[in-house]
Amino acid sequence: MCEIFSFLIALASIFFFSKIFGEFALKFGQSVIIGELVAGIIIGPSFLGIVSKTQILSSISELGAIILLFEVGLSTNIEKFLKAGGWALVVAFVGVIIPYFFGYFIFLYFGGLTNIQAIFAGAVLTATSVGITARVFMDLQFLETEEAKIVLGAAVIDDVIGLVILAVVSKLIIGGTITFGTILSISGTAVLFLILSIIIGVLIVQIFFKLILKMKQQHVTLIMGIVFCLILSALSIKVRLAPIVGAFVAGLVLSTIKQEKEIKEKIEPIYAFFVPIFFVTMGINVDINVFNPFVVSNREILVLVGVLFVVAFIGKILSGFVVLKKNINKLLVGISMVPRGEVGLIFAGIGLQNNVFNAKNYSALIAVIMLTTFVTPIILKSLISKKKNDSIII
Amino acid sequence: MCEIFSFLIALASIFFFSKIFGEFALKFGQSVIIGELVAGIIIGPSFLGIVSKTQILSSISELGAIILLFEVGLSTNIEKFLKAGGWALVVAFVGVIIPYFFGYFIFLYFGGLTNIQAIFAGAVLTATSVGITARVFMDLQFLETEEAKIVLGAAVIDDVIGLVILAVVSKLIIGGTITFGTILSISGTAVLFLILSIIIGVLIVQIFFKLILKMKQQHVTLIMGIVFCLILSALSIKVRLAPIVGAFVAGLVLSTIKQEKEIKEKIEPIYAFFVPIFFVTMGINVDINVFNPFVVSNREILVLVGVLFVVAFIGKILSGFVVLKKNINKLLVGISMVPRGEVGLIFAGIGLQNNVFNAKNYSALIAVIMLTTFVTPIILKSLISKKKNDSIII
Repeated sequence: MCEIFSFLIALASIFFFSKIFGEFALKFGQSVIIGELVAGIIIGPSFLGIVSKTQILSSISELGAIILLFEVGLSTNIEKFLKAGGWALVVAFVGVIIPYFFGYFIFLYFGGLTNIQAIFAGAVLTATSVGITARVFMDLQFLETEEAKIVLGAAVIDDVIGLVILAVVSKLIIGGTITFGTILSISGTAVLFLILSIIIGVLIVQIFFKLILKMKQQHVTLIMGIVFCLILSALSIKVRLAPIVGAFVAGLVLSTIKQEKEIKEKIEPIYAFFVPIFFVTMGINVDINVFNPFVVSNREILVLVGVLFVVAFIGKILSGFVVLKKNINKLLVGISMVPRGEVGLIFAGIGLQNNVFNAKNYSALIAVIMLTTFVTPIILKSLISKKKNDSIII
Repeated sequence: MCEIFSFLIALASIFFFSKIFGEFALKFGQSVIIGELVAGIIIGPSFLGIVSKTQILSSISELGAIILLFEVGLSTNIEKFLKAGGWALVVAFVGVIIPYFFGYFIFLYFGGLTNIQAIFAGAVLTATSVGITARVFMDLQFLETEEAKIVLGAAVIDDVIGLVILAVVSKLIIGGTITFGTILSISGTAVLFLILSIIIGVLIVQIFFKLILKMKQQHVTLIMGIVFCLILSALSIKVRLAPIVGAFVAGLVLSTIKQEKEIKEKIEPIYAFFVPIFFVTMGINVDINVFNPFVVSNREILVLVGVLFVVAFIGKILSGFVVLKKNINKLLVGISMVPRGEVGLIFAGIGLQNNVFNAKNYSALIAVIMLTTFVTPIILKSLISKKKNDSIII
């Protein structure tokens, strides 16, 4: 009875504080995710200590990550991919490669990490958070511009690239030695799994979801959609990919069926239940004490955070300047790609779980992700209003 | 990684088979709950063995019971209680007392149970399932009749009586000795907790949910409603009541606020996610082997199931005959009260968890509950169509 008591109290605290701090974040023009991370840091063991890490909480938070990526997949329209065009692809690749390699080398030579650790840490910095940027664009009615289309396309593509990198990197953790051949075979398997599960998945769901149309129970479509997501997530684990890869593919595949809208509508409250648990748990895992500047041994971490932040920031800005197209505000594109979010946090979490990172590395990465998310909306708002003023003058 | 793999597969199997067998149940005019229980028996260790009992599954299933009772509370209108009138109250009390005491004595003298075990087992037989009866009435367009109002009123009231009995009984498990004084003090505490949490709760939510109206995040009302439910559930544990008691009260209290409809609408997909997990898990816990009639030692269990079923059946039918009102089909009222469901299953589950029951007693009780649910719709349909024919002739 005592166990269920602490479980209920933990859930209640997570929900309550996520909403309170999420609201504060909104008030200060920040993303709700920041509020949820801060909520986790505050109720976690490094501060108030109301909620501690438990097996059940980590399982439910993993389910939260799965539902999050399922939703991202559902919202990712394959057609829009193509419409975003080649520039989105270029921006995505450059924006992945630069922060990845600089992150890797900094971690390797200054962060004191091993080769595999550094490879994993670099991966954390790759994926732009679609959510945060889309939110800022939406608030400022900027979604229909050329810049917004490139940025959102690129953000979705670098999610996919990120997932492939994660697939490769996760396999490396288990394996050990790295040659160019192994990297190639691993990325090959990952890409093959993605392509095959998309093609076979689309065929299966087209037939299956026509069959269940006849079923009379409520919420059949929703629950069967979740079943498909869970099965693909489990399959990903079997081919040594992260479960979120399968969840994303499941969402992508289900976005092609007729009942897509029903699933998206009904998954919303389930998303509202599980996803904050994921972000708050990420915060709970952060050890705030490693940032105490009065402890001498912590100072190198603060320097590491600073350097990584600069790399994460500049790497994405450079990706904007590869767009060789007229009338495009390249700086605006670059800045829009800066915020890291969900996917980076998931990578960091997987690294922590598999003992690739210790508490210090993990907390440094979370800090960098949070910093990118703090600064972007502020810069972006001023850039967009400047651009709007300019076009009025013209 | 392996642990999360089996967790995902377990969830997928539970969802998939619950929908498949739920659909079969509907096809054969049965309640979906029966389908979910059968799904659990089939995928559980006593049959296919796809899903086994784990700590995380039992925690999530407990959360399912909490959300189920929260929803029952939300759907229980305090005004309708009063409108159902005195007869509903009488029917409820008689329908609780007769099966309870007969069940108690049969378990004590023929079932080989101890005093406390028998008290608990009697409680399992008390509460009518509002869901199943309401569903049959709805299907046959019988909801607006005098009989239906009495039955639905009584079914809700005996849920509340059942929860009070559970409160008393749960305390007895921990205590031990039973005198009339202890029973009185325990029921006193339980009733006091119910009354106080309703009164204080209503005051708190009126103010709190006005305050959060200003919050801009999505689903704030839903999540804060769940927070309130979780806190009251945890509080119930602190005063040694079952968490579902608090969940029910939370629902009842929240049914008085303006945003009630929003919470009820949005809780639906969450209900669709968690509640089947609860029922399927109930089925997973059933040991089907104890019903094998070729094993001699099992025959007493089959006899016990038979006797208990007769008691459970006749006890509720008698409750219909206390309605001393003209133009009321007393047999119809009685039969309508026969199906046991959610609350009985929850009681049985709590009994199993606290080692009040062994696998045999537990499985016998589940069998009785399932039998009451199997037979009622069949008898009820013929009674209602006979009554409709009669009134046409007149």
